[in-house]
Amino acid sequence: MKLSEKMDRILQSPIRRFNKYAIEAAENGKKVYKLNIGQPDVETPQCFMDAVKKFDEKVVAYSESCGETELQDAVSEYFKKYGMDYGRDDIMVTSGGSEALNMTFTSILEPGDEVIIPEPFYTNYSTFVTAAGGVIVPLTTKAEEGYSYANKGLIEAAITDRTKAICCLSPGNPTGNVLSLEDMKLIADIAGERDLWIISDEVYREFVYDGRDVTSFGMLPDIADRLIIIDSVSKRFSACGARVGFLITKNRDMMEAATKLAQGRLCCPTIDQIGAAALYRLDKSYYDDARAEYESRRDAVYDELMKIPGIVCRKPGGSFYITAKLPIDDVEDFLMYMLTEFDDNGETVMFAPAEGFYATEGLGKDEIRIAYVLNKDDIRRSVELIRLGIERYKALRNGR
Amino acid sequence: MKLSEKMDRILQSPIRRFNKYAIEAAENGKKVYKLNIGQPDVETPQCFMDAVKKFDEKVVAYSESCGETELQDAVSEYFKKYGMDYGRDDIMVTSGGSEALNMTFTSILEPGDEVIIPEPFYTNYSTFVTAAGGVIVPLTTKAEEGYSYANKGLIEAAITDRTKAICCLSPGNPTGNVLSLEDMKLIADIAGERDLWIISDEVYREFVYDGRDVTSFGMLPDIADRLIIIDSVSKRFSACGARVGFLITKNRDMMEAATKLAQGRLCCPTIDQIGAAALYRLDKSYYDDARAEYESRRDAVYDELMKIPGIVCRKPGGSFYITAKLPIDDVEDFLMYMLTEFDDNGETVMFAPAEGFYATEGLGKDEIRIAYVLNKDDIRRSVELIRLGIERYKALRNGR
Repeated sequence: MKLSEKMDRILQSPIRRFNKYAIEAAENGKKVYKLNIGQPDVETPQCFMDAVKKFDEKVVAYSESCGETELQDAVSEYFKKYGMDYGRDDIMVTSGGSEALNMTFTSILEPGDEVIIPEPFYTNYSTFVTAAGGVIVPLTTKAEEGYSYANKGLIEAAITDRTKAICCLSPGNPTGNVLSLEDMKLIADIAGERDLWIISDEVYREFVYDGRDVTSFGMLPDIADRLIIIDSVSKRFSACGARVGFLITKNRDMMEAATKLAQGRLCCPTIDQIGAAALYRLDKSYYDDARAEYESRRDAVYDELMKIPGIVCRKPGGSFYITAKLPIDDVEDFLMYMLTEFDDNGETVMFAPAEGFYATEGLGKDEIRIAYVLNKDDIRRSVELIRLGIERYKALRNGR
Repeated sequence: MKLSEKMDRILQSPIRRFNKYAIEAAENGKKVYKLNIGQPDVETPQCFMDAVKKFDEKVVAYSESCGETELQDAVSEYFKKYGMDYGRDDIMVTSGGSEALNMTFTSILEPGDEVIIPEPFYTNYSTFVTAAGGVIVPLTTKAEEGYSYANKGLIEAAITDRTKAICCLSPGNPTGNVLSLEDMKLIADIAGERDLWIISDEVYREFVYDGRDVTSFGMLPDIADRLIIIDSVSKRFSACGARVGFLITKNRDMMEAATKLAQGRLCCPTIDQIGAAALYRLDKSYYDDARAEYESRRDAVYDELMKIPGIVCRKPGGSFYITAKLPIDDVEDFLMYMLTEFDDNGETVMFAPAEGFYATEGLGKDEIRIAYVLNKDDIRRSVELIRLGIERYKALRNGR
């Protein structure tokens, strides 16, 4: 009555692991600023619940396995605005981007197959790849280089006979790194030469700053047949709890495989899809406003981080995360200190230690990820708390 | 750039495969009674949408990975009514019973591991077991014996070194077979002797007829540590589109493994969980009414089926399915005839050929599954159409 051995290789979420200490700190009367998870405080557009509330069928029935056509069509229109042509048959609705990733890895991986992913990476990739019997081969990136990885030598060195796919998340979590269209072409060319799938997780697509263009692997028509785009309403529309995502591909074999898995789990939630369709009909100004808000937060968090002596951090170009190297050897120990010992005027801060975002043992121990999901004042105060915490922590640890 | 070889072993849903012919028949002006899928016409209790509409948070945020505590507590209370003690830590909310099955097989199976399942079985088991790299070993049951399988010799003969679990669905889909508590004890004893998991899919728990007691493997305390219960709001509350299910176990290792997978996919839809919690607070009379409705439909469909000369069918004790052997060699050919050639006063009927519910090659070609999800008049008329269809089909085919 054993469990599968692979379950041992899946680790508990490093993001949520410190939750209980944060809860204890709050119970002890401390205010804890939470920069540790990607749950924005931005309001979900009212049209979501308005559409849900209009649902008046007598039976909350199964929807189609591949999704409500109303939603597929709304997403198709959305892509057209960026000059990308994805029709109903290319767009499968999934339970969040998570299920799209799960279906993708389940469909393409044999036990022992490899997926190339730049590290640090969104930890749940590890869960999905491992659950599908596969192995992540990381491309190690560095804080000093802004965590960039669009480098032919770096990528080619990671390819083996077992490599099935290159998986990119741009704009990135946890680093905020953004691939330019040129970077994407470089990666696409390698995938073409070595006959690999490209899995492109583009859930932060619009969140690019400093005048950068919105980019997508979908803008490169040559690789349409090897491309699987992962998408979601969670971050774009601040609707994480709707659990509506998408698996998008023009590869018919892949869509057929995913359809079998989709039929197996019957369908996605009906009313959330109705709400999501309304979100996709929002005017372009919605994206501009959201981008402006996150860009100003990015500026605030970066400004404050730069006040920390010894920090290593390049200004990231997108998403709503920033990863930085602190002048501290063991960031997990520092976080425990922040939650259990430190306070400044009754306040402390929680962030995500970056070690859990690395596949390579020993890396990331001195790095943290910040999700800038709070308003600017709270973000400035949060990073100030990190700075004050570092000062006191170093004094305390050096004094021991 | 290949797909995983296992994807070839996952077949397209046999239930939905004939859809396009039904759509064509409807487009040609025929009325098509649909007995082919388990989507009841019973109204979802109003409290579901009422609770959803009351949601007034500004952000549709992630819920907890293992589920909203409000819903876990409501389910815990529900089980108490049957004398079963499952607390918050034993109840994980999943995206329908489907995800609970998916997580279970992913957690327990190594590639090549075997799961014993009575056939004919709910086809999606095959999708989940195969996607997890496992193999189904069927216990073949017979129409003549009411598809019963609680037989020590039958089960023990199927166990090998690779057997990991016995998976039961009672009340059953597609057969309507119901395990008594004594049957469950027999299976539990075997699982105990051979150290196997018991996966008990109990999504039709209340739908038992002729005065039968509600039964659950959860009523057998000796096997608590090896038991994984799959549950769902879909059928119980006619809320298939809510996609709210449950993985329930007292085995801490299993719950820990499932929690890792749950954290990987972040959470289930927030507003559907709020609606589901309201469903679980419904009065006992709701279950009595639903049971009475389905029992009277069961009687109607059985009565009408018995008018077909040569049919083999025992009156099933539960769920809302019935499987029967028709006096026809090739039921798929018969269904094509019904959808493309037959009509009686402009009406025809769609059902599920049972071949797709068997793992053993060649079985079920002369069997059909009927989901009695329509009102009694429509059900009687539907089965009448099957009877008329058989008469004409036989005359036609014999005449050729």
